[in-house]
Amino acid sequence: MARLRLGMVGGGNDAFIGGVHRIAARIDNRFDLVAGALSSTPEKSAASAETLGIARSYGSFTEMAKSEAARADGIEAVSIVTPNHVHFAAAKAFLAEGIHVICDKPMTSTLEDATAMQQAVADSDALFVLTHNYTGYPMIRQAQAMVHAGELGDIRIVQAEYPQDWLTAPMENEGVKQAEWRTDPARSGVGGSVGDIGTHAHNLACFVSGLAVESLAADLQSFGAGRKLDDNAHVMLRFAGGARGMLWCSQVAPGNENGLKLRVYGSKGGLEWHQEDPNYLWFTPLGEPKRLITRNGAGAGQAAAAVSRIPGGHPEGYLEGFANIYTEAADAIRAVQNGTPRDAAMGLLPGISEGMAGMAFINACVMSSWQDAAWVTL
Amino acid sequence: MARLRLGMVGGGNDAFIGGVHRIAARIDNRFDLVAGALSSTPEKSAASAETLGIARSYGSFTEMAKSEAARADGIEAVSIVTPNHVHFAAAKAFLAEGIHVICDKPMTSTLEDATAMQQAVADSDALFVLTHNYTGYPMIRQAQAMVHAGELGDIRIVQAEYPQDWLTAPMENEGVKQAEWRTDPARSGVGGSVGDIGTHAHNLACFVSGLAVESLAADLQSFGAGRKLDDNAHVMLRFAGGARGMLWCSQVAPGNENGLKLRVYGSKGGLEWHQEDPNYLWFTPLGEPKRLITRNGAGAGQAAAAVSRIPGGHPEGYLEGFANIYTEAADAIRAVQNGTPRDAAMGLLPGISEGMAGMAFINACVMSSWQDAAWVTL
Amino acid sequence: MARLRLGMVGGGNDAFIGGVHRIAARIDNRFDLVAGALSSTPEKSAASAETLGIARSYGSFTEMAKSEAARADGIEAVSIVTPNHVHFAAAKAFLAEGIHVICDKPMTSTLEDATAMQQAVADSDALFVLTHNYTGYPMIRQAQAMVHAGELGDIRIVQAEYPQDWLTAPMENEGVKQAEWRTDPARSGVGGSVGDIGTHAHNLACFVSGLAVESLAADLQSFGAGRKLDDNAHVMLRFAGGARGMLWCSQVAPGNENGLKLRVYGSKGGLEWHQEDPNYLWFTPLGEPKRLITRNGAGAGQAAAAVSRIPGGHPEGYLEGFANIYTEAADAIRAVQNGTPRDAAMGLLPGISEGMAGMAFINACVMSSWQDAAWVTL
Amino acid sequence: MARLRLGMVGGGNDAFIGGVHRIAARIDNRFDLVAGALSSTPEKSAASAETLGIARSYGSFTEMAKSEAARADGIEAVSIVTPNHVHFAAAKAFLAEGIHVICDKPMTSTLEDATAMQQAVADSDALFVLTHNYTGYPMIRQAQAMVHAGELGDIRIVQAEYPQDWLTAPMENEGVKQAEWRTDPARSGVGGSVGDIGTHAHNLACFVSGLAVESLAADLQSFGAGRKLDDNAHVMLRFAGGARGMLWCSQVAPGNENGLKLRVYGSKGGLEWHQEDPNYLWFTPLGEPKRLITRNGAGAGQAAAAVSRIPGGHPEGYLEGFANIYTEAADAIRAVQNGTPRDAAMGLLPGISEGMAGMAFINACVMSSWQDAAWVTL
Repeated sequence: MARLRLGMVGGGNDAFIGGVHRIAARIDNRFDLVAGALSSTPEKSAASAETLGIARSYGSFTEMAKSEAARADGIEAVSIVTPNHVHFAAAKAFLAEGIHVICDKPMTSTLEDATAMQQAVADSDALFVLTHNYTGYPMIRQAQAMVHAGELGDIRIVQAEYPQDWLTAPMENEGVKQAEWRTDPARSGVGGSVGDIGTHAHNLACFVSGLAVESLAADLQSFGAGRKLDDNAHVMLRFAGGARGMLWCSQVAPGNENGLKLRVYGSKGGLEWHQEDPNYLWFTPLGEPKRLITRNGAGAGQAAAAVSRIPGGHPEGYLEGFANIYTEAADAIRAVQNGTPRDAAMGLLPGISEGMAGMAFINACVMSSWQDAAWVTL
Repeated sequence: MARLRLGMVGGGNDAFIGGVHRIAARIDNRFDLVAGALSSTPEKSAASAETLGIARSYGSFTEMAKSEAARADGIEAVSIVTPNHVHFAAAKAFLAEGIHVICDKPMTSTLEDATAMQQAVADSDALFVLTHNYTGYPMIRQAQAMVHAGELGDIRIVQAEYPQDWLTAPMENEGVKQAEWRTDPARSGVGGSVGDIGTHAHNLACFVSGLAVESLAADLQSFGAGRKLDDNAHVMLRFAGGARGMLWCSQVAPGNENGLKLRVYGSKGGLEWHQEDPNYLWFTPLGEPKRLITRNGAGAGQAAAAVSRIPGGHPEGYLEGFANIYTEAADAIRAVQNGTPRDAAMGLLPGISEGMAGMAFINACVMSSWQDAAWVTL
Repeated sequence: MARLRLGMVGGGNDAFIGGVHRIAARIDNRFDLVAGALSSTPEKSAASAETLGIARSYGSFTEMAKSEAARADGIEAVSIVTPNHVHFAAAKAFLAEGIHVICDKPMTSTLEDATAMQQAVADSDALFVLTHNYTGYPMIRQAQAMVHAGELGDIRIVQAEYPQDWLTAPMENEGVKQAEWRTDPARSGVGGSVGDIGTHAHNLACFVSGLAVESLAADLQSFGAGRKLDDNAHVMLRFAGGARGMLWCSQVAPGNENGLKLRVYGSKGGLEWHQEDPNYLWFTPLGEPKRLITRNGAGAGQAAAAVSRIPGGHPEGYLEGFANIYTEAADAIRAVQNGTPRDAAMGLLPGISEGMAGMAFINACVMSSWQDAAWVTL
Repeated sequence: MARLRLGMVGGGNDAFIGGVHRIAARIDNRFDLVAGALSSTPEKSAASAETLGIARSYGSFTEMAKSEAARADGIEAVSIVTPNHVHFAAAKAFLAEGIHVICDKPMTSTLEDATAMQQAVADSDALFVLTHNYTGYPMIRQAQAMVHAGELGDIRIVQAEYPQDWLTAPMENEGVKQAEWRTDPARSGVGGSVGDIGTHAHNLACFVSGLAVESLAADLQSFGAGRKLDDNAHVMLRFAGGARGMLWCSQVAPGNENGLKLRVYGSKGGLEWHQEDPNYLWFTPLGEPKRLITRNGAGAGQAAAAVSRIPGGHPEGYLEGFANIYTEAADAIRAVQNGTPRDAAMGLLPGISEGMAGMAFINACVMSSWQDAAWVTL
C-alpha cells in the first residue's frame, strides 16, 4: 500500500515527543515524513528538517498548511507535537485545508480552545486523531475487549494511577526545558500533573471500562516550592451507571518513573495492567486463580493480536503502542479517502470526543480543588 | 523467663481470629493460655476449652474476670477476640480487676463505647494493647524507623489501600458466619469495610508516616445487593503538617485476597510495602536505583531485626507479625510488673490512642459519606 | 488431644536450627518440650535448658535416652538438631529405646553412618522423621498433588536450584560459627553446598516430581580461598523414566539469600515455585494463560489446605512449613501408638528413604566431580 | 545523515524474522530497503517486494549481488534472513562484491560452511554483522559495562537459560512452517534447540561476562516424538579463567514463551536480567540491598543510554534492541566508508568471531551429547 505523505508541526531537534511521533509513524512503514514546521523560527526549523532528512521546511504552520494544500503531492496528514497552547491554532490551519490531523494531547491548553477545536473539526471533513497513545497498547485493547464482552460482569470499581517522580526537585528552576513549559500555566493550561498525565489515566480508565466520568472531587497540591501548577492530585470518581473510582497522579513520587496503572473490578472479575510492564494483563475471574495473559500468548484474543507485531515473549513497548495509533490513523485516512464515513473510519481511535472529555476532566479537577474538593459534574 | 498466664474471651472452636491469637501467643513461648470464656454459652465454652486443652473454662467473661482476679495463680492478661460489639464490656471487666488486656480491633463498635473504653483504661493501672497486628511486621518497623530517621525527607504523600474480594458475591446470605456479623451494623458498628480493614490501612499509614490524619473526605458504597454496610470506600486524606493521601478499601475487588499496601513519599525518597509479600520493602531514594530491602537481609536495620526470628530469605509471615505484638505485650507487662510506667512500657505497641484514632477514622468516613464526601475533621 | 512429650539433642542457646525446631514444635501446640541435652557440656546444657524453661537437662544424649526411657512420663519423641556428624549416634541411642526420632538433615555426615542409621531404624519400632522441611510448604504439597494427579502429563524436565550468598566472602575465617562447621569435612561430611542445601533441592525435586534420580554428572567448585568443601555445584540429572534435569546450588552467588526454586515441566503443563515467595505456585497448562495459585486461594486444593492455618492472602512462612512436619510427625506418632503400622503412619513425611536418597545424592555428586563430572549411578 | 541503501535476501511475506529485520532497519531511519530476493522463486519474490514497496526484486541472491554491485545506486548493505542453510552462500555472494552483510544467526548450518564463511569474510573488505540481537538490549549493554568495569569482582558463575514451549506438542507434524524447518537437520544443521536458542544464551553469557567457554558437557534430548533434533539441552560450562556455569535451553517447557535469562555472579556482586522484562537489571552488590536499575533510570549509565531512545519508565522492547544492532551497523558501515579500519568500526557489534564461537558451541554440544556428556573443548 502506498505510504501516506505526512507533515509535522513542532518536534524540532531537542523535543522529546516529536521524535516519538516520528518513530511511531515509521515503525509500520505507512507514512513518509516530507514536510515540517519544526521549530519556532524558520532558521531553526530548516536546521532540524535538514538533520532529519525532511524534504520541505516551512517557517510557520500557516504557511505550511497553505503551501502543502496547494501541491498535488502535498501532505495528506500532519502531526502536531508542539506545546499544548499551540495545538489549536495549528490543528485549525490544517483542518481548514482538509488535511488530516494527528494531534498530541492534551488537546488544548484552555477550554475555550477546546470548544473552538470541536467546531473546527465539525467544520472540516478531515480526521482528527488525538494521540492518547496508551490506548494503543495491545493488552489495553485486550482489556477493553474483555470488559466489552462482559467478562468482568457489571463494572463497580475503577482505580487509575499515574505516579512519576521527575518534578520531585524543582527542575523548572534548573534549566530543564521540559519542566519549564509543563509547569507554566501560559503554555500548559490550568492543569499541571492533571493535564500532563492525569488525562492519560482518565482516558485509559474510560477507554477500558467503557464508562464516562459523571462527576469528580479533586484535591490538588503543588509540593514543589513556588510551583504554580499542581504536581500531585487525588481524585474521587463517580461514573455513569454507578461505578466508583479513584485517580491519583503525581510528579513528585520518588521511585516512580512512568507508573501508569489501571485496575478495573466488576461483579464477576477484575483486570490489572501496568504501563511499565505492558505485555502483561492480569485477569482475575472471581473464584478462580489469577491468570496472567501475555501479548500474543495463550489466552490473548484478536483485539490484542490485531495491534501486535511479534510473538509472545518478545516484548513490545511504548513505541509500538504509539505506532498502533499511527497505523490505525493511516488505515482510517485511507478508508475516508475511499469513501468510508469519518466516524466509522475512526474505530477505536481517540479523537475529538476524547479530547473534549480530557479537557472537561482537567477543568473539573481544577474547579473542584478550588472549591475544597467539592463534587463537580463533567 | 517465666511465661505469663493468659486468658481468652471469645475464640471458640470455629472462630478464625481466636486461633490466630493463640498461635501468636505461643510462637515465642511467652504465654500459657490457662483460662477462657470462649463462646456465648457455658456448654460451648467448656467444649472449646476442652478441645484446646485450656484448664479453666467460664460461662461468662464477668465470672472469669472476678474468679481469676481472686486466684493467686489467676491470669495476668486476657485476650479479647469476640465480635466488635462485645469488646468494650469484656475489656472493662478485666481492666477493672487490674488484668492486662490484649484486644482485637476495631476497638469497639460505637463511638460511645470507645469513649467509655478510654475512661476504663484511664481508671485502670493495667495495660491495654490493641492488636493492630500489621504494625508488627518487621519491614513495617523498618519503614517506620526510616521515616522517623528522615531518610525520606518531608513526607508529602501517603497512599494506602486494602482490597479484598471475599464479599464480591453476597456471602452473608449464604450462611457464611464471618460474612454475617461483619455486614451487620448491630455487631460491627457503622463501618463495614472501613471498620474491618480500612482501620488497618489508616493505622498503618499513620504508624509508618508518623503523621495523624486531620481531615478526610470519603465516598462509601455498598455494591452487594441489600448490604447495609459499606463494602468499598474511597477516601482522600489530609495529614497534619500538609501531607496528603488516599485510602481505598474494598471487599468486592475480585483477585485481591488481603491486599493491604502502603506507599509513602517524601521530598527525598519513597517506600513501598505489600502485606502479601511482607518480607520485602522497596526503598527509592530520589535519583538512585530502587532498592529492595529484605527482612534480616543486607540494608535492613535494627528495628526490623528486633522483631525477626530467622535469617533473610526464610520468609516470616502473618502469624509471626502477629506474634510480635504478643511478645512485645509480654515484655510490656513484665516491665509494668517491675515498675516501669505504663506509657513507657508500651513502646511501639498500639493501644488506646490508636484505638481512639481508628474509631474516629471510621466515624469520620461514615459522616463524610453521609454528607456527600464533605471534609470531616478527625 | 494431649500433647506429646518431646526432648531435644543439640540446639543450645546460640544454635540457629534448634530455635527453629522449637518454634515449629510449638506452633500447633502438639508437643511439650520437657527434656534436653542441648550442648556439648553438662554446664552449658543446663544453662540453655534453664533459659528455655526446659524441665530436665542431661549431660549427654546417652544419659538422656536411658533416663527418659526409664520414666513413666519420659519423652515420647526426640528432636536431633546437632551438627551432622552427631546425628547418627544420637538417633541410634533413642531408636534403641523405642523413642521416636525427628532428625535434622542431612541424615548423617558419612555413607557408613547412613547405612548404620538404616539398620538402626530397621531394628527399632520407633518412627524416624527427617526434617526435609521444605516439603512441608503448602504449595509444595499442592504441586506434588498436581503432578501425582497427572495435571502436567508425563514429566520431562526438572530444574532445581538453591543459590545463597553467605559464603561469598570467607566467613569461616572470620569467626562465624555456622560457617566454620559447615565448611569443615569432619563435621559436615564430604559435601559442602551439596550437603547443606543441594540435598534440599534434590529432595524437593524428587518429592514433587515423584521421580528418583537414576544418575548424575556433577561439577563442584570451591570458590572461597582455601575452602575444603564445595561452595558451588552444577549437576545434570537423569531421572528414572526418562526425565532430565539440572540442579544448581551455590553459597557464593551474591544477592541470593535462600533462593530454593523448583520448576517441573511435563507434556501437558508446568509448575514453578520459589521458597522466598512460598505462598504462590505458578501453574502453566500448555496453551492456556499462566495461573497463579495461592495458598488457600481459589484453585488451591485439599493437599495445600490440609497443612495451612489461615486464609489466602495472609502469608504463612518458613516456620509454618517446618511446623507442618512436626504436626504430621505428632499425628504419625499418635497413629503408631494406636496401632497403625509404621510405614502407613508416615504418609508424606520424609524419613529413612529420603535420608538414604539424600546421602546417595551427596556421595554421587562428590564422586562424579572427582571423575571430572562423569555420570554416577545412584 | 543520508540513509544507507539496503537489500534483503529471504524474508518473503510469511517469514517472521524478515519482518523483524525490516522494522529494526526502519526504527532509527538509517536505511532504505530498495532491493530484495525475498523468496525461493522469482514470482513469489516479486509479489513480496510489491507488497512491501521494495523497488527492485530479483529472482536469486546471485543475480541480486551482481546487479546491485554494478549499479551506481546499488545497495550498500544486505540483510540475510533465510533459513540457516542458505546463510553462507548468500553472504559469500555479497561479500565477494564488497557489499556489507547483516546476517541472521546461527551463522551457518554446518561447521564447514562456518569455516568457509570465515574465509569469505577474510577475503572481503566488507563488514559482516551477525544479528545476535539480544546484545542490543540497553540493559545488556549496562551489564556488560558493569562487568567490564569490575563492579562484580572476579566472575565465578554464569547461569544462562532460554526456555520456550512452542514445540511441546509436535507442531512440525501439524503444518507449522516455522516448526518444520527448525526441526529439520537439512535446513537447521545438527543443533535443534541448541542452534536456534542455545546459541543466543551462549552468546549473551560470553558477551556480558567477557569470558569465553573453554569446554562444555552437554546432555541433549528430543522429547517430541520422532523429532530428529534436540528440543531440550542441559549444558555445564567451564570458562577461561576458572568461572563455571550452566546453560539450559528448551522448546518444550510449558509456560515459557521466550524466557532468555542471564545471571552472572562475581566475588563482589551479581547481575540478573530477563529478556521478557528487558528494561530492568538487578544488581546485587555483596552486602548491600538489591538494586533494580532501569533503562534510562537512575543508576543506568552511558552504555545503556547510548542505545536507548526514550526516558525511563517508557518501555523499549525486542524491536528496539534489534534496531540497535542495525543502527550500530549503519554507523560501522559509514565509518568504514570513511576510512576507519573494519575491526575498529565493529565496536560491540557481533560478527564473524561470535559466529564462529556460536558454531563451535553448537557442535560441541552435539559432540558432547553423542559421547554421553563428556567434556568437549571448544
